[in-house]
Amino acid sequence: MSDRRQDPEREHPIQDSLSLSVETLRHKGALHELSGVILRHGGDVSSVAILDSGHEIETISFEVNELEDHAGLLEDLQAIEGVQRVKENPALKQIFGKRIIIIGGGAQVGQVAVGAVAEADRHNLRGERISVDTIALVGEENIAEAVRASSRLPRVRVVVLAGSLMGGEIEVAVREVRERGLEVISLNMAGSVPDAADLVVTDAVQAGVMAVMAASSTAAFRISRLKKRVF
Amino acid sequence: MSDRRQDPEREHPIQDSLSLSVETLRHKGALHELSGVILRHGGDVSSVAILDSGHEIETISFEVNELEDHAGLLEDLQAIEGVQRVKENPALKQIFGKRIIIIGGGAQVGQVAVGAVAEADRHNLRGERISVDTIALVGEENIAEAVRASSRLPRVRVVVLAGSLMGGEIEVAVREVRERGLEVISLNMAGSVPDAADLVVTDAVQAGVMAVMAASSTAAFRISRLKKRVF
Repeated sequence: MSDRRQDPEREHPIQDSLSLSVETLRHKGALHELSGVILRHGGDVSSVAILDSGHEIETISFEVNELEDHAGLLEDLQAIEGVQRVKENPALKQIFGKRIIIIGGGAQVGQVAVGAVAEADRHNLRGERISVDTIALVGEENIAEAVRASSRLPRVRVVVLAGSLMGGEIEVAVREVRERGLEVISLNMAGSVPDAADLVVTDAVQAGVMAVMAASSTAAFRISRLKKRVF
Repeated sequence: MSDRRQDPEREHPIQDSLSLSVETLRHKGALHELSGVILRHGGDVSSVAILDSGHEIETISFEVNELEDHAGLLEDLQAIEGVQRVKENPALKQIFGKRIIIIGGGAQVGQVAVGAVAEADRHNLRGERISVDTIALVGEENIAEAVRASSRLPRVRVVVLAGSLMGGEIEVAVREVRERGLEVISLNMAGSVPDAADLVVTDAVQAGVMAVMAASSTAAFRISRLKKRVF
């Protein structure tokens, strides 16, 4: 019994993609121009990021699938005016993998991170890639905004809310990102957020461990299959 | 005395930017087409990400500066065939801010994260935004690759290497990303990585705290101004 068929990453194996970074003189049309050259080569951009934005030379990195001709694309990119250097890289998805995001108060975020990092270590030792990211914040609006923004970051699977009182707009944001396919774990706390979460965990370290287990494609753990929702 | 004039983020104030996400039917040319419409409106794309890549409907989010006409851009994007929805968002830079990345063995990464998250909390309470990201990894090649890839992620300022023995290819990667403008903090450990780092710290929690202090634009702490390099 395996859920692997449902994992979209397995339908688009990461080995097929070309990851490249292009250093170019900063100008407004750079992204449009580079993506046009990739498109002409039949490439499908699955990931893109702009680095050093605002500097004279900026780097735009792409992960491209379905390319017909790697060498030809690299040559054509290199030939564009302003392009300084084109480099092939290992794909970010292969390096940093799936992401857990822990949001909330510093004391509890730190403890959830301890659990999540230790569990991610165990998974990554066996060939997976799971990374653990955090943002320590105070205030209903700030936290709600960060929860919503998590669904606009690449490769995020699980959000953990680590605090002692969260409700109101944060509860609304939790329901929104669950609609978008993220799983949400809440510490057992005051306020309405635990009611809106997929899973409620009392111990902060365990919440981190369970978040990584939920994101893993090798673990037998699936939140949707649990008979209890509060631990 | 302030370093603020040297901070590129202050030269391009984040308030000016429009952050938007476009939900579109997945097709190869989507990025090229959307970036073309933004360019026609005079927009300069400072950040871009593709979400739900591989799904039938994907979301492409942009942060755009120097726009002449916000409403006109939103209308023209909405009018593109296949576009389901265009939404304005708060900018990711405003929400997650500068990033620290902690790389290494789970036990030590977790402790560095505790220090970094607690310190980020104190900065974020005063209006900054600093987030703390981690990846627990084993093996010289894997760690070297992650160090190099850190310089291809957006908004990263400081990398912390948390382990007990690191050298060889990791040392080379550390020197490369320092060339690219990242600051590197190493735990005091065996191997050649401490020699290659900007700063060496013995206590894991303190290494995390110092990483956040180094990334902060409000703290008086600057690694380049320290008289000692090993703590």
